[in-house]
Amino acid sequence: MLGLMQNWPLTVDKILDHAKQWHGEVEIVSRSIEGPIVRTTYAQAHERAKRLSNALKGLGVQPGDRVATLAWNTGRHLEAWYAIMGMGAVCHTLNPRLFADQLCYIINHAEDQVLFTDLTFVPTLIEHRARMPSVKHVVVMTDEAHMAGLGLDGAICFETLVKENAPDFEWGGFDENTAAGLCYTSGTTGNPKGVLYSHRSNFLHTLITLGADVMGFSAKDTILPVVPMFHANAWGIAFSAPAVGAKLVMPGAKLDGASIHELLESEGVTFSAAVPTVWQMLLTELREKKARLSTLKRVVIGGSAVPEAIVRGFRDEFGVEVTHAWGMTEMSPLGTLATPNQATKDLDAEGQLRLKLKQGRAPLGVEMEIEDDAGRVLPHDGTTFGRLKVKGPFVVGEYFHGDGGQILDPHGFFDTGDVATIDEQGFMQITDRAKDVIKSGGEWISSIEIENIAAGHPKAALAAVIGAAHPKWDERPVLLVKLTDGEAASKEDFLVFLEGKIAKWWTPDDVVFVDDIPLGATGKIDKKLIRDRMKDYVLPTAAPAKVSA
Amino acid sequence: MLGLMQNWPLTVDKILDHAKQWHGEVEIVSRSIEGPIVRTTYAQAHERAKRLSNALKGLGVQPGDRVATLAWNTGRHLEAWYAIMGMGAVCHTLNPRLFADQLCYIINHAEDQVLFTDLTFVPTLIEHRARMPSVKHVVVMTDEAHMAGLGLDGAICFETLVKENAPDFEWGGFDENTAAGLCYTSGTTGNPKGVLYSHRSNFLHTLITLGADVMGFSAKDTILPVVPMFHANAWGIAFSAPAVGAKLVMPGAKLDGASIHELLESEGVTFSAAVPTVWQMLLTELREKKARLSTLKRVVIGGSAVPEAIVRGFRDEFGVEVTHAWGMTEMSPLGTLATPNQATKDLDAEGQLRLKLKQGRAPLGVEMEIEDDAGRVLPHDGTTFGRLKVKGPFVVGEYFHGDGGQILDPHGFFDTGDVATIDEQGFMQITDRAKDVIKSGGEWISSIEIENIAAGHPKAALAAVIGAAHPKWDERPVLLVKLTDGEAASKEDFLVFLEGKIAKWWTPDDVVFVDDIPLGATGKIDKKLIRDRMKDYVLPTAAPAKVSA
Repeated sequence: MLGLMQNWPLTVDKILDHAKQWHGEVEIVSRSIEGPIVRTTYAQAHERAKRLSNALKGLGVQPGDRVATLAWNTGRHLEAWYAIMGMGAVCHTLNPRLFADQLCYIINHAEDQVLFTDLTFVPTLIEHRARMPSVKHVVVMTDEAHMAGLGLDGAICFETLVKENAPDFEWGGFDENTAAGLCYTSGTTGNPKGVLYSHRSNFLHTLITLGADVMGFSAKDTILPVVPMFHANAWGIAFSAPAVGAKLVMPGAKLDGASIHELLESEGVTFSAAVPTVWQMLLTELREKKARLSTLKRVVIGGSAVPEAIVRGFRDEFGVEVTHAWGMTEMSPLGTLATPNQATKDLDAEGQLRLKLKQGRAPLGVEMEIEDDAGRVLPHDGTTFGRLKVKGPFVVGEYFHGDGGQILDPHGFFDTGDVATIDEQGFMQITDRAKDVIKSGGEWISSIEIENIAAGHPKAALAAVIGAAHPKWDERPVLLVKLTDGEAASKEDFLVFLEGKIAKWWTPDDVVFVDDIPLGATGKIDKKLIRDRMKDYVLPTAAPAKVSA
Repeated sequence: MLGLMQNWPLTVDKILDHAKQWHGEVEIVSRSIEGPIVRTTYAQAHERAKRLSNALKGLGVQPGDRVATLAWNTGRHLEAWYAIMGMGAVCHTLNPRLFADQLCYIINHAEDQVLFTDLTFVPTLIEHRARMPSVKHVVVMTDEAHMAGLGLDGAICFETLVKENAPDFEWGGFDENTAAGLCYTSGTTGNPKGVLYSHRSNFLHTLITLGADVMGFSAKDTILPVVPMFHANAWGIAFSAPAVGAKLVMPGAKLDGASIHELLESEGVTFSAAVPTVWQMLLTELREKKARLSTLKRVVIGGSAVPEAIVRGFRDEFGVEVTHAWGMTEMSPLGTLATPNQATKDLDAEGQLRLKLKQGRAPLGVEMEIEDDAGRVLPHDGTTFGRLKVKGPFVVGEYFHGDGGQILDPHGFFDTGDVATIDEQGFMQITDRAKDVIKSGGEWISSIEIENIAAGHPKAALAAVIGAAHPKWDERPVLLVKLTDGEAASKEDFLVFLEGKIAKWWTPDDVVFVDDIPLGATGKIDKKLIRDRMKDYVLPTAAPAKVSA
């Protein structure tokens, strides 16, 4: 027997409809790519987006077609989004930080028909335009004055499209499972793979993130997403801010500490979200200028683990509450947030801070488990770590075009590729990437945990831990250390330093001093390259072990 | 093109699964019907509910069958709910305050197979059991000790079912549009009509109500739903509290001020929800005892309009924030809440209080309009009032068994039967019931607004306004006044009192002094009965008007 409630498909055009209807005069403030601060409202954005839908239709875009954006966070980017999704086309957000080869691969793989770009990326497009054969039209997100002399053949002006088209487009009316967005993972191995979000998955992600213990947005908030829209929908903020009618402040291309600080203060921002490096830049800026944060109340930090110093800095010096979050493109992107629950609400300030350094707990809608290699569910004891697997209505089911094949386990869980612990209170902590974990005698050793401790040695500039082949234990950890210039140290110095800080059997079998520890594009240690460099290395302990009687 | 995210049906069993998995040790505290305070946890409730699902299967309950509950808010009631819904049966909550005739009508209309009852209602069931032929089994929600001498033939003991069945039942696995709950409206005209909630509608209602600007529950909260589970899922709290892992305090049968106050204090309640009369009783109790509220932070008040004195009392004397809400059984039940938005966030305390007296604004997921009789959408100016219509994924589509026929307008909106204004800031205020509004010369006059003012006359005990037939204007208002014992007043006294407080053309054409103004079961003025009594009344102004040349 089916229920008799209304059929109301969860399509994201309803989010901007809602914002227009009930929060029409609320502002979207953008630092434009051209320079000046630009102000629109949800009502204006709604109308402009509808005009753009008509423009896209005029350019030949059909439901299901992919339309790409290569753009910073601005009001225009938001308008393009709702124009694309509202008409049933797929908004493919491109990460401008990718190499041109990857960008071209992704555009061709997605078969993007139209590409919206900011002025910033016009030179890249001029250089590589010929390598994007599916792209029929490029729309430059600017006004007519800034189109002059761009040198991009056939480029169309965004504001001309808005001006010349009518706002009478009918959005929605399709299945809520219709594809809405496409975002490629920055996969460290193999080609990038596309995650194809649906209207339903984006809508449900929006509702979940609005929960008080998740992002907890209110109509009273003023929200500045530093996290880019090309990173999984700006962690959903492109949907969740209009969903509640919060004022939205878009930082454009300027993400340095001074520019962000200026917007935080001038627009009365109460909430912001970004990766740790952005917040570190902001803290540095604030300390140098001896400046204050007069309206900011909360920041959510994700993308990589939050350093304790950032949490303390915001809390103690600026009275801002930091929430640590974890997610991934495949999860739309959230994930978990480190907000207190019944079991932890009465901890003191230091206890709360310790919790904040974990990636956090799962809201309703995110199923999460840790498992061993055999798929056995591991205990939530805060020390046992295993492969982190997730399931839910906004978790990837398969990649675009079936890349990677069947990616769910028999229980429908997606393997995140992370290794994590979950404690008795439900707080998850990432301990390693699955491919970096060291498997020694059937047990796992966290490479990250050892290297984080070793990096704290006063003479260490950088430290890395990888697994090296061992005839008895399969793998044993080896510690690579780059010493600070002018320092000298022995293997023993580092082994003694680790003593008592890690389990005895985690102690590296060797310490190798190196001149260079390579970092990847995101500033993380490039373990793949290290493993390549060390492929001929033999552990001193790897000589055949004597068999005891 | 469809998205490629996971298929994860929105079924409410997942809510209790989540609570068990991540908040398993969080308490459900009940004032039991037998007397003592009883404590369970979400993990225990989950296991007990699964045992009950097996028990219901053993009693012959099939997916789609209706299983009724006639019960107060307790942990056992919650367990019965999830047992019924988790197995795909329909939980039909009966309102024990209904007359036996209505109760029997509803049970027969729903064809309830099994009925769960509290001890409280056993006498009623003994008396009327023979009139419920579809009911095969009655389960008394108590332990074996309290079953002795009940005198209800064939009654089954709840705790025996829990003890004797295994906890291995597999919940869910069906279409998210499967019926989950059934609740009859207390319709003032005609027979009660059933609203058949689906798993999807309940799940989406849960997600929407968790928003920071709606109920805004956190895992840190301790929630006491005074509002009964038989009133549209305790305003959703039976789902939303476990959804976030909040501690749940169930008040059982004792809803008086002293009993509620005791639980608020002893259990550290932070949030509660009830109708105004409950809060008025609590305020009286607190004042008499000169008591404090040491943990309560927020109360949501709905069911009827919130008197200003209650908002002020909670705010000024007890530091508790009142949020005014509006909803109806047909809406699952929310509705609107009077929480500030960008346009109103900077109002001073008095301005905020004025807003709180309105029913509030619609969250994403609730579409809302006011329309005139011709279906024209009316302006949001705070003064124009019209029929309040709603649309959304947890709004009724049709009544059970098709009662009432087609109930949506051509645009898919449901007419709430209320008449309301919506102001420029999006705040809705109910001004009348559609059937009570007075239609004078094509314009509408709010009966409630006039009677509320008239009731403020120092000599008035009660006041009511109805429309009386008028040859020129169709209807004109007539004011009925019951004077305070021993007082005397003239028509003119009341007309002068109204002057300047209402529009000139709203002035009643007559004032009739009566000995009695009848009240309905919920304490509201019974306009239907008044209209019956006044059916032979003729307005003094209803003599044929002279035609002016």
